[in-house]
Amino acid sequence: MSDPRWWGWGAAGERRPVGPAALAMLAERAGAAEPSPPVALEDVELRPPAELPDALAAAVGTGNVLDGPENRLRHAAGMSYPDLVRLRTGRVEDAPDAVVVPPDPEAVAALLEVCGRERVAVVPFGGGTSVVGGVDPVRDGFERLISLDLSRLRSVSVDSRSQTARLGPGLTGPQAERALGESGMTLGHFPQSFERATIGGFAATRSAGQASTGYGRFDELVTSVRLAAPAGELRTIETPHSAAGPALRQLVLGSEGVLGVITDVTARVRPLPEQRRYEAWIASDFATGADVVRRLVQEEAAPDVVRLSDAEETRVSLALSGTEGVARRALDSYLRLRRRADGCVLIAGWEGEREAVSRRRTLAARILRAGDAVALGARPGRSWYRARFEGPYLRDELLDLGFIVETLETAHTWTRLEELYAAVGGALRAALEGQGTPPLVFCHLSHAYRDGASLYFTYLARRRPGEEIEQWRAAKRAACEAIVGAGGTITHHHAVGRDHAPYMNAEIGELGLESLRAVKQRLDPAGIMNPGKLLG
Amino acid sequence: MSDPRWWGWGAAGERRPVGPAALAMLAERAGAAEPSPPVALEDVELRPPAELPDALAAAVGTGNVLDGPENRLRHAAGMSYPDLVRLRTGRVEDAPDAVVVPPDPEAVAALLEVCGRERVAVVPFGGGTSVVGGVDPVRDGFERLISLDLSRLRSVSVDSRSQTARLGPGLTGPQAERALGESGMTLGHFPQSFERATIGGFAATRSAGQASTGYGRFDELVTSVRLAAPAGELRTIETPHSAAGPALRQLVLGSEGVLGVITDVTARVRPLPEQRRYEAWIASDFATGADVVRRLVQEEAAPDVVRLSDAEETRVSLALSGTEGVARRALDSYLRLRRRADGCVLIAGWEGEREAVSRRRTLAARILRAGDAVALGARPGRSWYRARFEGPYLRDELLDLGFIVETLETAHTWTRLEELYAAVGGALRAALEGQGTPPLVFCHLSHAYRDGASLYFTYLARRRPGEEIEQWRAAKRAACEAIVGAGGTITHHHAVGRDHAPYMNAEIGELGLESLRAVKQRLDPAGIMNPGKLLG
Repeated sequence: MSDPRWWGWGAAGERRPVGPAALAMLAERAGAAEPSPPVALEDVELRPPAELPDALAAAVGTGNVLDGPENRLRHAAGMSYPDLVRLRTGRVEDAPDAVVVPPDPEAVAALLEVCGRERVAVVPFGGGTSVVGGVDPVRDGFERLISLDLSRLRSVSVDSRSQTARLGPGLTGPQAERALGESGMTLGHFPQSFERATIGGFAATRSAGQASTGYGRFDELVTSVRLAAPAGELRTIETPHSAAGPALRQLVLGSEGVLGVITDVTARVRPLPEQRRYEAWIASDFATGADVVRRLVQEEAAPDVVRLSDAEETRVSLALSGTEGVARRALDSYLRLRRRADGCVLIAGWEGEREAVSRRRTLAARILRAGDAVALGARPGRSWYRARFEGPYLRDELLDLGFIVETLETAHTWTRLEELYAAVGGALRAALEGQGTPPLVFCHLSHAYRDGASLYFTYLARRRPGEEIEQWRAAKRAACEAIVGAGGTITHHHAVGRDHAPYMNAEIGELGLESLRAVKQRLDPAGIMNPGKLLG
Repeated sequence: MSDPRWWGWGAAGERRPVGPAALAMLAERAGAAEPSPPVALEDVELRPPAELPDALAAAVGTGNVLDGPENRLRHAAGMSYPDLVRLRTGRVEDAPDAVVVPPDPEAVAALLEVCGRERVAVVPFGGGTSVVGGVDPVRDGFERLISLDLSRLRSVSVDSRSQTARLGPGLTGPQAERALGESGMTLGHFPQSFERATIGGFAATRSAGQASTGYGRFDELVTSVRLAAPAGELRTIETPHSAAGPALRQLVLGSEGVLGVITDVTARVRPLPEQRRYEAWIASDFATGADVVRRLVQEEAAPDVVRLSDAEETRVSLALSGTEGVARRALDSYLRLRRRADGCVLIAGWEGEREAVSRRRTLAARILRAGDAVALGARPGRSWYRARFEGPYLRDELLDLGFIVETLETAHTWTRLEELYAAVGGALRAALEGQGTPPLVFCHLSHAYRDGASLYFTYLARRRPGEEIEQWRAAKRAACEAIVGAGGTITHHHAVGRDHAPYMNAEIGELGLESLRAVKQRLDPAGIMNPGKLLG
């Protein structure tokens, strides 16, 4: 994508207007919001950049150190709600002193060596799509900080026989898919951030995509990594598996830039699917629908994509989807006719050879029907597929209109999933109602496993003008505490960054944290790598 | 199993005599060996035990510290070839000063605290089936060393809805399966060591079982672990997945007792299969057969068990299997008739619901036939299934007869598998021929992945009386160097222990090793945990 907007997701000028019916629904449910368009680029003031050591430019080449204000601004934040608020309002707290764009892995190694010696903090930057503050320029005592932009590391090498590909960390989702497509292959990794997020980011954050139930999460696809750390290079062996001690690859995956920079990723790929078949079903309620998903997985009949919206998400997404014509009216009357006002849409998608898709669909359909789900056909499935990357565009519009829109996710075993669902939803509603901004809170279940699933919550409320961050913080804290209280994970696939770091102790305990800090101390003795993230 | 023999695998007195045809084949191929029956228990001399601090017995209870010679001897070695040679010849180099059998996880924690303070080395001991020296009492400078026998930690708690079970580390394979069977569940984890190996050992060594292509390797089944380390307890969250940083669970899996003691394992389980269907096929040669296995996996049609013997293993296992009657003669003439003298037996096994087994078998059979494989039917499949844990019993017999028998394994991508196969086989043949003991070297491919597979080598030769260890060491070194040279992993599922520790640098590099050592330093500051293993 060329020239994306600096304060949000889409290309500059690109719009996805919210329709009148949706606006009416929002006004009725969340109240009248005060619009908040973004400030102009010229109106954003950045602190003057600190001077960087000459050795730095020498390590990567002078032309590869960019310190103009727009470049600095474009690397000053990720895509979390507080990040976007800071950008849109021009209240950018800090920005990197420069953006460094190394031309190859060797330059990365040379750069880290210099930065370690000179005590320059380094924030690795892929697509800049972190929604947890993962690329925020947190100085943590360092006087100088650079954003290490990996966009030039885009090598691709495919081994068709072994169905693996070695990929540069700077490739975005579409760039990687285009290159793999030339060999007839695909990663099958499609998170909502696909259009801008990168291979290195997928690996550093343990990304999961919409089709990860079928293709596997990114951490399951990766067979080998190369990490440039200030202390040297870490490289894992390129074999399908090894029992030679703890899996070092698993220490790099999810390391979020605090140990070093991922400079190479070898991942399993597979042939491009001959067919993609997506369809929608409707379950009678969320608990029944969740039980059907559980049976699909446990009976080895899960589609490649399976996601179940709760009743509220079903209603809201119908209203927001813009398909206010025939499809929506048909669905509406269908739901009324069947007395499924609390009906929950379930999207099921299969990808692969035609014959396999058909065989697997038959298997799944039997279980879906046995679980009282009703087929809505391929048309709404296709709509979902076409709109699957739309969320962040829509968020820009809703932010313009003056709403807070935020998502968060967690996971648990089937046995405790309902408890977690109730706790997080309740906490979000209470936290936002308590601030006088009654929210819409909705959820979908996705990423289903034999032993459990993830829950993905979205909430939407009127923003509190001038107190957006405080409003967000109160809701975030309430949700995180509810998750921890219910024994769920603080993140199934959004990673830790700044926002979840306070909850790492609940997740892995003090000794767990100290074990990771011991590794960091060895790989990054000066502590320059992505300060303030992950390990607190 | 009650009262197993102290110098080998089976129960005392249990025999699996090698038949006359097999003996003739061995004599012809390997030459006449000089029998070497084990010495009597009374003839084994152990060094006198060092005195242990009183605080140790106080931590676990006086009755739980066993220091009689038989107990010490039974914890003085694992089941590697050099271990068995040392036991059988009575040349036991060292033995633990005592065997400590803690009654619960709290006693383990108390014990480690004492041992850390008093500088007593601790060797965790599950089933004692390590084939890489993993339970050998290596003192590495410590004057006192205990074997920490986990056999009393056998708790079981099943969550049928989430299909997980929390299991004590001391449960052997059969004990775990019996307990799970009461809830209608199974782990589906069947390594050759199943009868004696334990849950804790499976986790600590990243065990893979014969059906791991279908059920998943043990490290894929584990969702959560608890580790008692001298510095405290490490515990991972019980959710199906988390993206909260590097996977700490993956740091504990494969840690081989050097970081602490695994006191609890939560693993995915699944319903007991309604049907088990095993059958044999014959591929025209190893390369063609390997290619069929690759297609089975890449086309998502792999059986739950799939293993392809090379031509030599096909011949030798027919000769050694003892099925010298009808079945073998029929197969022999079949092979001649079809001109498949180089034919390679492929075992395919499916487990699950009758309908699923039938459906999946049809899919696989189509690919097998397209790859020129010929079905031999269910009878030889069932024989393989019945005999699947027989290897170690047979080894005892062959050792009695005066042969060296040893196995080793590795893995690589499909693209480099043939190179690895040739390199390792060639190295083993050269190393053993060079010592005047021409070997039989054979191999099977198992544990197939989309991107590659493991190779499991067995070799068999006349032992060099009095120089058994040197003979073994020369072959081991040659094989390991060939593996490293071909870029394969030093172990796919036998773990590292003592024997593979020198090759960890080739596997994960110096910085990788130092990262793991940094974690060890934090969890085990006195370095008492399993000295001399894994990290060298």
